[in-house]
Amino acid sequence: MSDLADQIRARDVRAIARAATLIESHSRAGENLLRGLFPNTGKATLVGITGGPGAGKSTLVDRFIKALRARLQRVAVIAVDPTSPYSGGAILGDRIRMQQHHADPAVFIRSMATRGHTGGIAATTSDLALLLDAAAYETILIETVGVGQDEVEVARMADITVVVLVPGMGDDVQAMKAGIMEIADIYIINKADLPGADRLDRELRSVLSLAKRQDGWTPPIVHTVATEGKGIDDALLAIDAFRNSSSKRQRMIASWELRLRDMLRERIVASIPDADFHSAATAVSQRKRDPYSVVQGWIDAIERRKNG
Amino acid sequence: MSDLADQIRARDVRAIARAATLIESHSRAGENLLRGLFPNTGKATLVGITGGPGAGKSTLVDRFIKALRARLQRVAVIAVDPTSPYSGGAILGDRIRMQQHHADPAVFIRSMATRGHTGGIAATTSDLALLLDAAAYETILIETVGVGQDEVEVARMADITVVVLVPGMGDDVQAMKAGIMEIADIYIINKADLPGADRLDRELRSVLSLAKRQDGWTPPIVHTVATEGKGIDDALLAIDAFRNSSSKRQRMIASWELRLRDMLRERIVASIPDADFHSAATAVSQRKRDPYSVVQGWIDAIERRKNG
Repeated sequence: MSDLADQIRARDVRAIARAATLIESHSRAGENLLRGLFPNTGKATLVGITGGPGAGKSTLVDRFIKALRARLQRVAVIAVDPTSPYSGGAILGDRIRMQQHHADPAVFIRSMATRGHTGGIAATTSDLALLLDAAAYETILIETVGVGQDEVEVARMADITVVVLVPGMGDDVQAMKAGIMEIADIYIINKADLPGADRLDRELRSVLSLAKRQDGWTPPIVHTVATEGKGIDDALLAIDAFRNSSSKRQRMIASWELRLRDMLRERIVASIPDADFHSAATAVSQRKRDPYSVVQGWIDAIERRKNG
Repeated sequence: MSDLADQIRARDVRAIARAATLIESHSRAGENLLRGLFPNTGKATLVGITGGPGAGKSTLVDRFIKALRARLQRVAVIAVDPTSPYSGGAILGDRIRMQQHHADPAVFIRSMATRGHTGGIAATTSDLALLLDAAAYETILIETVGVGQDEVEVARMADITVVVLVPGMGDDVQAMKAGIMEIADIYIINKADLPGADRLDRELRSVLSLAKRQDGWTPPIVHTVATEGKGIDDALLAIDAFRNSSSKRQRMIASWELRLRDMLRERIVASIPDADFHSAATAVSQRKRDPYSVVQGWIDAIERRKNG
């Protein structure tokens, strides 16, 4: 295992892919690996990129990769698709255009389908990001499809969240206020050459003017036409501005708070054998026991085990 | 608080609504109330009703209410909308047609918007269902909008899951295989008078024939035209058949297993002060500590507190 950690620090792409599989399977080996790599992390910037289907996120990501490579950065992409039926590591349709980067060892792309990752999508994404951080990727782009609760949680784990909108979904600005817009650090209006881009811009500004952020950051709105490469540098400048702000430090602490809660939750559940959950559930479903005392009993049992 | 429990057992609608608000706010009072009511639960059948937007779920639910009332049952509805920006208890557009039941004290309808219920939608729904069970509602219909991970988790908490499809979304049968179809106990093809109903039926059967369930249950496919009340009795018969099968007992145990894991997760996180999460997150983000030893330290601290 320490060999694998060394290979990852040495940026060995095959070792990184092997480690990603370990992490996605939530194996103890994956956790031990990350524990060993943790001191090597903290240098990467995690950029979450989210928005509805058809917003052009994959094309944007492709352009970001090119622009960051032109700055000689090492770039990783984690593509999270909560609706995908494929198992971990599958290549999704939209990802095909990214395959041109596969020959470049300084670009690492991982598609993570989330079937079966119930409740743990954000945690797994965060673990993969730690791995890629340790492997010296300087920018890690986390692309999520959709605007549901899963996507919001993944986005909260990033250091910077970019929300991609397109003209012609004006109504959705209202709908989106609820979830993803609360965590947007930067807005991109993609396909900004389409009619309605200015109207969308105005709507967005009026929504933003109503909700001042506690950290003092005002999310900028960047117009792009990703298919033509327009606005990409502006978007990267906006990301840099956030990266250098005090908001980013606050954001990283907030995402670690979420992460620590997640880890504690999973650790405690893993400490109870499946058979115990099954027999307790049977007793509860028959009303022989109540669930509250069952759970309290487990918490008490942690104590006894420590003393045993 | 014991007064409130008594009022709930006495089926006092205003007390039930007040208790629902306590539960949705995740207050300690809500939990204590449910602990006291737990011995009064276990008689209701929880029927999850899910499917994409436009499938006609609300009309179906409305028809189910009427048909169950004709059987002299007390009926409750929990409408869960993960995309709604409204806070708990809001009335959603589609719910308006259900308002005709508001004058009937044997029908209780609660809309639960899920903003801010991060990670706890399914748990809160399950808690509300326990409350309504204790208030002697015999059938509790849990309606969810959409087919994402949140909906799957809500559906897993039900005793019986009904998936509603409509003709003309043939491609979606393939897409849905990933998530919601794995937990469907009964399929309803609603708007079955539209062209394509038979084709959808065939597609569904071919998908079902590929995936035999471990519990031996073969999900029936019921055709309905909810707007005309057609097929509603057939659907209720299918629900009864599942209710009386051994699959339902297995299902209830499985949903309690999920629920106990959820409760343990939340209990353990609640036992750590927010300030501790914040200071640990700060140290981790600065790489002064690693997250794995932080979490282990908390688990150790549970022990010390028990001994203190």
